[in-house]
Amino acid sequence: MTKIHYPYNEFREDLKILTNKIDQEFDTIVPISRGGLSIGQMLGEFYNIRQVYAINTIGYEGTKKLDEVKVFHLPNLENGNRVLVVDDIVDSGDTLVAVLDILKREYPKVKFFTASLFYKPTAVIEPTWWARQTEDWIEFFWSEDLKQ
Amino acid sequence: MTKIHYPYNEFREDLKILTNKIDQEFDTIVPISRGGLSIGQMLGEFYNIRQVYAINTIGYEGTKKLDEVKVFHLPNLENGNRVLVVDDIVDSGDTLVAVLDILKREYPKVKFFTASLFYKPTAVIEPTWWARQTEDWIEFFWSEDLKQ
Repeated sequence: MTKIHYPYNEFREDLKILTNKIDQEFDTIVPISRGGLSIGQMLGEFYNIRQVYAINTIGYEGTKKLDEVKVFHLPNLENGNRVLVVDDIVDSGDTLVAVLDILKREYPKVKFFTASLFYKPTAVIEPTWWARQTEDWIEFFWSEDLKQ
Repeated sequence: MTKIHYPYNEFREDLKILTNKIDQEFDTIVPISRGGLSIGQMLGEFYNIRQVYAINTIGYEGTKKLDEVKVFHLPNLENGNRVLVVDDIVDSGDTLVAVLDILKREYPKVKFFTASLFYKPTAVIEPTWWARQTEDWIEFFWSEDLKQ
């Protein structure tokens, strides 16, 4: 798999692509921690949404992929009618599916949308909106920029 | 108050200043949403900490400052011994104090540290670590960069 360096400036441009694609309204943003945090913050600012409630998942223990993704630190969405779940990349899609499953079960009346910067066509789920397809390994600036 | 534009590149350099000041270990990061989300993500990557659990506060309704800051979406810190609470700016300090109060009450055995990029000397609390003092109004890149 090719490693692609992904600096902040590209992230910013891709977020603009994403906001141009997003054609529905929502009142709450749920970023998946850690990957979706910066995206959640910037989309929250852009759409003037303060209800940005991060959720957590564990899919690995060390380097071992767990049989199922554990989802925790669930937000209370009783006041949300339309919720956008965001992550950096939908790779296998397992994380997004696990998050949606538990949120839909807990909040059956809420309408959920999903958005990611990157989407791999081999994933088990396609987000409602994504900025770019990729087959590569993305080295996001948030993983790299403090090392230098 | 002078408005200061604060682009990503300065943010990155200030995060390096912050990590150079941080001289204690911790196992969990609690970013205050929305301001602390990008910081929480980048510090989580830098320190290889996956336990990044965002918390939420409301200090304003519209433009009206509330008498007290409401804190919600509390993380479960039962598995955390040493927790770093992060925010973008400690201005009045009311938000950080409210978050610390409730977390310390819920988790009396946990050791809490605090970090912010900016700190105003007039605040009621000084974070354990901060990168820069300011008296200005900071226009963070995450509020501005998608508008253009």
